[in-house]
Amino acid sequence: MECVVRPAQSTDCDHVMAMIREIAEYHNKLDKVTINSQVLGADRFGGDPFYQCLVAELAPEQEDKQGHLISYVLFFFGYSVNTGRIVYLENLYVVSEFRGPGIGKKLLSEMAKAVLARGCSEMKFMVVAWNSQALAWYRHLGAQDKTEASDWHCFELGAEALRRLAGDGR
Amino acid sequence: MECVVRPAQSTDCDHVMAMIREIAEYHNKLDKVTINSQVLGADRFGGDPFYQCLVAELAPEQEDKQGHLISYVLFFFGYSVNTGRIVYLENLYVVSEFRGPGIGKKLLSEMAKAVLARGCSEMKFMVVAWNSQALAWYRHLGAQDKTEASDWHCFELGAEALRRLAGDGR
Repeated sequence: MECVVRPAQSTDCDHVMAMIREIAEYHNKLDKVTINSQVLGADRFGGDPFYQCLVAELAPEQEDKQGHLISYVLFFFGYSVNTGRIVYLENLYVVSEFRGPGIGKKLLSEMAKAVLARGCSEMKFMVVAWNSQALAWYRHLGAQDKTEASDWHCFELGAEALRRLAGDGR
Repeated sequence: MECVVRPAQSTDCDHVMAMIREIAEYHNKLDKVTINSQVLGADRFGGDPFYQCLVAELAPEQEDKQGHLISYVLFFFGYSVNTGRIVYLENLYVVSEFRGPGIGKKLLSEMAKAVLARGCSEMKFMVVAWNSQALAWYRHLGAQDKTEASDWHCFELGAEALRRLAGDGR
């Protein structure tokens, strides 16, 4: 399957949002998705980017499907007090009919080039343990499971708790 | 203990770096710290900020210790495909002699105000399970342990694996 990997543009937001909803639906978590394509566009292309995104598009020769996005990777830059610049992988998705022939790896590879060029030396991300295929794939790529190795736990503090905390300043 | 919480300035980098080394030494991981105060300064104040940082300074009336930093919180902005803008807490540290009287909470509270003002609705972070005091404190603040609740695992892909991945593009 020939495809072209390129940075997402604002005109891609409807397509990327459709894929985000597709994956959420698959996980039976569509009710957790509170963003829409306008928000997605504003948060990347509104002058103050909160994330970066690469997309894979079917190659032009497949005319009937030209402009058809089949995958995205969404990531952002961050920092480690040990090693400095890092990248945080938020989400990588390949639509089901195109899984298998290395499209995910192609996207991650392009992402790796881009973030190495920005001086990042590490990628952090979270994987849910029941997704054994994802676990195996990331391990195969050389990733270390910090939960298994050193019992690191992933935490989330939601909006309500954040607001309570903001009101607790003394 | 009266202290002032304010955004870190470039002149604070030596002090913040000293605290970063202090915590690494405590964890017996000083050899993992590859950054120094110049890198720390450039990565925040060099025109392309990779992180945000607040510091707590002893209040002016304590003249003998004025300008003495006793805590920092280091964080960065990111994105969730579900809820949009988020903040990622990299590290919160209070020097040992000042622990207890709510300095950590004061810093987190100021951080919460700042990130809510930027539209963030969630804070993500990682905690190592042997640090039971930290686990209990974050839970008390309303955080959810996603590893315990849904078996999410923390992963890291290092520089060597990133470079291999970057070379693997097809």
